[in-house]
Parts: sequence; C-alpha cells; structure tokens
Amino acid sequence: MVTTVDPAALVAGVRAGRPRAIGRLISLVESGSPLVPGLVADLAADTGHALVVGLTGSPGVGKSSAVGALVARLRERGERVGVLAVDPTSPFSGGAVLGDRVRMQEHALDAGVHIRSMATRGELGGLAAAVPAALRVLDAAGCATTLVETVGVGQSEVAVAATADVTLVLLAPGAGDGVQLAKAGVLEVADVLVVTKADRDGASGLARELRAMVAHGHREPGDWVPPVVALSSVEGTGVDDVLAAVADFAEHQRRTGGWDVRRTARARGEVEQLVLAQVRASAPGGAGELDRLAAEVAAGRLDPYAAARDLLAR
Amino acid sequence: MVTTVDPAALVAGVRAGRPRAIGRLISLVESGSPLVPGLVADLAADTGHALVVGLTGSPGVGKSSAVGALVARLRERGERVGVLAVDPTSPFSGGAVLGDRVRMQEHALDAGVHIRSMATRGELGGLAAAVPAALRVLDAAGCATTLVETVGVGQSEVAVAATADVTLVLLAPGAGDGVQLAKAGVLEVADVLVVTKADRDGASGLARELRAMVAHGHREPGDWVPPVVALSSVEGTGVDDVLAAVADFAEHQRRTGGWDVRRTARARGEVEQLVLAQVRASAPGGAGELDRLAAEVAAGRLDPYAAARDLLAR
Repeated sequence: MVTTVDPAALVAGVRAGRPRAIGRLISLVESGSPLVPGLVADLAADTGHALVVGLTGSPGVGKSSAVGALVARLRERGERVGVLAVDPTSPFSGGAVLGDRVRMQEHALDAGVHIRSMATRGELGGLAAAVPAALRVLDAAGCATTLVETVGVGQSEVAVAATADVTLVLLAPGAGDGVQLAKAGVLEVADVLVVTKADRDGASGLARELRAMVAHGHREPGDWVPPVVALSSVEGTGVDDVLAAVADFAEHQRRTGGWDVRRTARARGEVEQLVLAQVRASAPGGAGELDRLAAEVAAGRLDPYAAARDLLAR
Repeated sequence: MVTTVDPAALVAGVRAGRPRAIGRLISLVESGSPLVPGLVADLAADTGHALVVGLTGSPGVGKSSAVGALVARLRERGERVGVLAVDPTSPFSGGAVLGDRVRMQEHALDAGVHIRSMATRGELGGLAAAVPAALRVLDAAGCATTLVETVGVGQSEVAVAATADVTLVLLAPGAGDGVQLAKAGVLEVADVLVVTKADRDGASGLARELRAMVAHGHREPGDWVPPVVALSSVEGTGVDDVLAAVADFAEHQRRTGGWDVRRTARARGEVEQLVLAQVRASAPGGAGELDRLAAEVAAGRLDPYAAARDLLAR
C-alpha cells in the first residue's frame, strides 16, 4: 500500500495531539520508515516533559485493571494520557493479551487517551528501538504521563526498567508471587510495589512480606526505599496512593539526580540501537552484510572481532 | 594487580583443556581485556563443535540438581563438559544463588568439568557480549557440551534462547508454573520441556497439562513439537530421556537448517555487541562520548538520530 505522508502536517497534527496523526507517526516508527529521523528531529524540542510509568507483573495480576484505574484518575485531573502495551507475541498467550486489550476499550473513544499496542514479533531488539521513539511521539503530543504496560514477567521487566522513569511491580495475593519474584531478582527493578486485589484474603500478609523483603535489601543511606501500596480495582481504592507514591519517587529522583541518570541510560540505549541500525543499513555489502558475516562467524570461518571490524570499515 | 599474559601459552593451555588457562581466558573476556580479540581469533579454528544447552526455569525448580545429573551422565560417557551459570546480581537473591553454586561442588575437582559463574553486575548488555565469548573458549577447550544455567525467569530465558542451540525449560509440579509461564510466553522459547521432581504428586498432571498446551500452540507442518520429559533427581530417573530429547532436537535442527539459523542469530548478536563496543571506544570524544551524547538527548538538546550519526562520523 503506497500512501503519501505530508511531514509538516503530520508534525503539526502530533503537536496538536490529534489521535490519527499520533497513530500514523507511531506506525511509521514501527515500520522503520526513512522519514522518521526527520520527523523525530522536528519534534525533539516538544519532548522531555512526559513522565513514563512502567507497570509489570505476572499474567493475571491485574495490570490492565490498574492501568484502567490510573487512566481514569489522570483524566479526571484533566491530563492527556498515553498507554503503550508491549506484547511479546506468543502462540500460547494470544488470547490472554487480546482479553487485556478489550478491557481498555472504555477509554478507546476518549481523545485525551492514546492507547497503542506494540508487539515484539519475535525480534529481540526490535522493540528496544521502537518503544523509545513511540514514547517521544506521545511526549510531543502532550501526554503528561505515559503508562507502559508489559505482558509477562522478566525480560519485559528489564526492558521497562530501562525505559521508564518509574517502575511499578504489581503482585497479587495468593499467587505465591512474593518469594518467587524476589528470588528472580524482579523486586530489584521496582520503584513502587503495588499489591493488587487488595480486597482479597492474604493481601495484607503479602504487603507485610514485601515490606520485610524490601527492608532486607542492601542499599546505601539516602537510597529510595520502594513503598508497598495496596490497590483494589473492585473497591476502587488505592489509586491515589499509587499516584502519590509515583509523585514521591519522581521528586526523590529530581532531588538526587537519579532522574537524569535514568533518562540518560534510556537515551544511551536508544542511540545504540540507532547506531546498529545505521551500521546495518550502510554496510559495504548492503543490509544483508551483517547476516552474511554472522553466518561466516557461526561456521567458524571468521572470528567475531574481525567481523565487527569489517562492518565498521567503510 | 598487574599480571603478565603469555598469549601463545594461554592459547595452547586452552586448546589442551587446562582448567587454569580456561579460567584465565574467561576472566580476560569478562574484564574486556584488549588481548581478547587476538586470543579469540587464534582459537577460532578450534570452535564450532560444542553443543550449547540452555536450562531455565523459576527459582527452586531444581535447575542445579538437573545440571548436576546431566554433568554426571555426560562425564560417564567420557565427554568434557562446560557449565556456565549466569546470575543476575540481586540484593534479594544472593543467598539462593550461592546455595545453587555450592551444590555443584561435587564436580569442582573433576578436571573434565569446567564450571564458571558469570554475573550481570546490573549492566544490561554486559553479559550479551561476554557469554558468547566464554562459550567460544569452552568450545575451543574441547567441551562437547556446555550447559548454560540461568537464575530467574524471563529476561534470562530470552538471553538463553538467543545463545543456546537447545533450550530446556524446567517446571516443577505444585508451583502453578504451567499456566503462569505459558501466559508469560516462556513456553515459546522451549525446545524441550522438563518436568522436574517427577517423584512428587502432581508431576504427571503437570506433564499432561504441558502436552495439551504444546498441542494447542500454532506451528507449521514439519515444525518441532517440544517433547515433555520427566526428571527425578531423587530417584535418579529421566536423565537419559532428557539427553535423548536434546539429541533428537539437535538432529531435527541439522536436518531442517534450523541449526545454522540459530547459530547465525547468536553470531549476529555477538558481532552487534562488538560493533557497539568498538564505536564506543573509538568515538571522537573518547569512551565517554556516548554518555555525553546520551545526556544531550535526554535533555532534549539533541535528537537521537543526530547523536547516532555523530557517533559514526569519524
């Protein structure tokens, strides 16, 4: 399908927060369009204001309900909100992910909420380049807050932690999640711990367990101690507590310089992905050159250091 | 500490499978020594023979016991074996990881088994560069099989799947792991599913559940269907079944060309990491140039595409 793009109109549309322009530009980002560098450069001056809040946790923990509740409250405050749902494409999880998306439909017709799903399509590194660019677009569009929801545990956490200004780790009572996640190193990426389904049995016990774990973590004096906050989507309680904890952490980060550290790390990853994309595209043998060299390395006919030198020597 | 390295002696020592030389070279790899490219190039012709088997699963599922049992059986067959334990460094999980390492001590004095822990030290991407290089060293040292054990669920899986020739996902009965992992997309990376603690209640139910999930996954005709194998470290059963499933998958991969696809993907990731390391090191402003540019990008004073162009323009 050939469609024409009017870059000036697209940039103006994104700046004005028009949903179609925003959706269109994110699609261009995902497809790796050659127009993107110019468009992102034009929008650069409009970015740097949005707060990126990552939400992660096991499937079924209530991430989408939490996102829905947070969006509703931020909209009541008159803020424009972005939602980026990052899906690992899995033949096993398709249904569950779709179910989550459907639950967000109540906000789908609100022009002040921009919801976008991004799938990995099995490519490692694909999202690493596209997510930061999509966040830039939503930032330029005036979203004061963008919520990044990841499906799944682990891989996604680290990606969220590398991307978000604030990372919320959600845990539900009764899933035995506390100890499991602690062992898996997931608590380490949490800036705020949210106990979901707080109306259920075991919620206060889980909160106590998490506070004890947090207290036992090694940290330096002055380091942030992740608070444990209870949220009940059923009873509609805890949403303000979560937002207050997010605001507290943001304030801590601004005061300690952690804000700049994290945003610089995010930018570093973004620039690295773009360097690789450019090296791939401008290799002497064309875009397939990296694959050809990798095949030589895999076959033992070339060492990887020589391959890297070859790629850069042009 | 200043120590002198005799490259020729080190290469000869690794080729001869001498534990001290192997350990020394992997330490040089981890420290990013400038000697590494030359040493790896010297060893390139000796590599390409080892089978890399990744093991992953939730904490407590019995990964270390499985690794111990597999090592023992491979040693009975007279094979030289490598073990790479990849640890996410976490203030919460230190004890658990240490416990796992201690369980491997029974093999620590066997000169035919090379055990090495590699920690992430919180740096994303650090392991992405070091693990493939360490695998090369073990390959050149004559390890017919190297087992890569990751601690934790998720992030680690993807790293393993990107690195291993064969990925084993371990699940234990009673942990509610089946459904959780399926939803999290973890089953997708499994070439072989191993039900551990097969002597316990619920093991055969979990195996049935997993077979049903596998049967429902979308795949093309001729695609590999991950077998579900039961392993009991207590009763000492299932080890040969696991190794037979690994051999079946290896044969399938050789026949279908999947072998080359995966090894080429691994080499591609390795070369990309080395390209980035070289770009970082040779940037016009020195090794700190990427950080300086990233800070400009984070502050909104530079767009990321311009930063990537700057880094490459020298």
